[in-house]
Amino acid sequence: MKLQQTAREYEMPHQLTYYECDEQGHPVLSMVMSMLSVVADEQSNELGLNQKTVQATGGTWVIASFEGKVNFQSLKIGDTVILGTRAVSYNRFFATREYWLRDQEGQREYARIKSSLVFMNLTSRKIESIPPKLIIPYQAPQVKRVPRGKRPKQIPEGAELSSRQYHVRYFDLDGNHHVNNARYFDWLLDPLEEKFLTSHRLKSFAIQYHQEVRADHDIDSAFFMPTPLTSLHQIKNNGLLCTSAEFAWEKIGD
Amino acid sequence: MKLQQTAREYEMPHQLTYYECDEQGHPVLSMVMSMLSVVADEQSNELGLNQKTVQATGGTWVIASFEGKVNFQSLKIGDTVILGTRAVSYNRFFATREYWLRDQEGQREYARIKSSLVFMNLTSRKIESIPPKLIIPYQAPQVKRVPRGKRPKQIPEGAELSSRQYHVRYFDLDGNHHVNNARYFDWLLDPLEEKFLTSHRLKSFAIQYHQEVRADHDIDSAFFMPTPLTSLHQIKNNGLLCTSAEFAWEKIGD
Repeated sequence: MKLQQTAREYEMPHQLTYYECDEQGHPVLSMVMSMLSVVADEQSNELGLNQKTVQATGGTWVIASFEGKVNFQSLKIGDTVILGTRAVSYNRFFATREYWLRDQEGQREYARIKSSLVFMNLTSRKIESIPPKLIIPYQAPQVKRVPRGKRPKQIPEGAELSSRQYHVRYFDLDGNHHVNNARYFDWLLDPLEEKFLTSHRLKSFAIQYHQEVRADHDIDSAFFMPTPLTSLHQIKNNGLLCTSAEFAWEKIGD
Repeated sequence: MKLQQTAREYEMPHQLTYYECDEQGHPVLSMVMSMLSVVADEQSNELGLNQKTVQATGGTWVIASFEGKVNFQSLKIGDTVILGTRAVSYNRFFATREYWLRDQEGQREYARIKSSLVFMNLTSRKIESIPPKLIIPYQAPQVKRVPRGKRPKQIPEGAELSSRQYHVRYFDLDGNHHVNNARYFDWLLDPLEEKFLTSHRLKSFAIQYHQEVRADHDIDSAFFMPTPLTSLHQIKNNGLLCTSAEFAWEKIGD
């Protein structure tokens, strides 16, 4: 039996500010996703794999999907949380990373999220094999099959959708020259509207990125609820599916 | 001659994340304004004047205006800056606070901004006198006349405006139950569009809040440029002036 290699973990503390929290004082998903991408960047920097080093190979990491369980109801503005991450496993074309959000005492976990990543050639914009020197330092096991994770259920044909239109604003772009990944979560969730969002708490989600939304695009964010506590979402640009997502909810007070 | 009382200063370090920076990797004004409000909150908390203590008096601080000079061009994602603040002076109805953003060595200053504040009764929504116990701990001098600061120039009658419409989204509201103050900066600047925003750097600004924008409102953000390096802005809701602002620019490379 081979010894199981253990991936390096990286953690950092973070105090929740008022602008990372919603009207009710709980952190919003888009901001949590931003914090988690910061902890991933910090780990990469510590391992000598900053953006410059990565792009010197002619490629870049692209997040293909997220899935996870969250419980933000007991977190409030001013709380200090621990953000953590580690690589989980990889093969030639896929890698998975795990993130968590926990209290300082290690008693409670507020989020456990996985992402699946591919490596894209910056010139051809095509997926290519992951350069070994960019993945080995994370010390995650190399595997035959990388688990693909839960995919969002598709919206059934002919379902009646509720939708809203958004324009991609200049300030939606970030220092990575892309629409900020986290911005998608605001577009996905905003159409559910205040009444639903303040009376339900998010339990779990799965999101899959198909096509990138670009600067100045107009997008359409639509959802359908097959049950009162499940919402299926899609973001389209000119009829082209860019993002699909599934969210599971719990009524607050139940 | 009376001894001049010196206001307490408060500073904290902050590392710039990619989602606080624009496409070119420099911090965006709205995020800097959010950071500065965090350092002000931290100082208040340290002095035992958290939001709960303030609201127990039946009132709340309201920011009436900001003005300041900024230079974000030499700051990049990953840089660690020092955020600082102090109360400047106050009288019965007005208080002013100063904020700064500097490097760790104390060699360079990236922003110096002043805000003017009033105190509003939470029930009547009217301005009232500042409760002494909420202002004395900051140790700023009490003065006869609080300097009102630079006001944004008004847009001349009949000027041809460029404008864009925005809808106030659920996630524009923050843990203070208001549209996030910083959000106004994105609405003000976005209509200038990418070409202008990437070829100019902001030098100084003045912003005045007249009426609060509320959840679910539709707003119109318009601007007029009396010179190639000055922009005058207004945010209106249903014809009612909510915010006015003036920005001074410098062409990058000049």
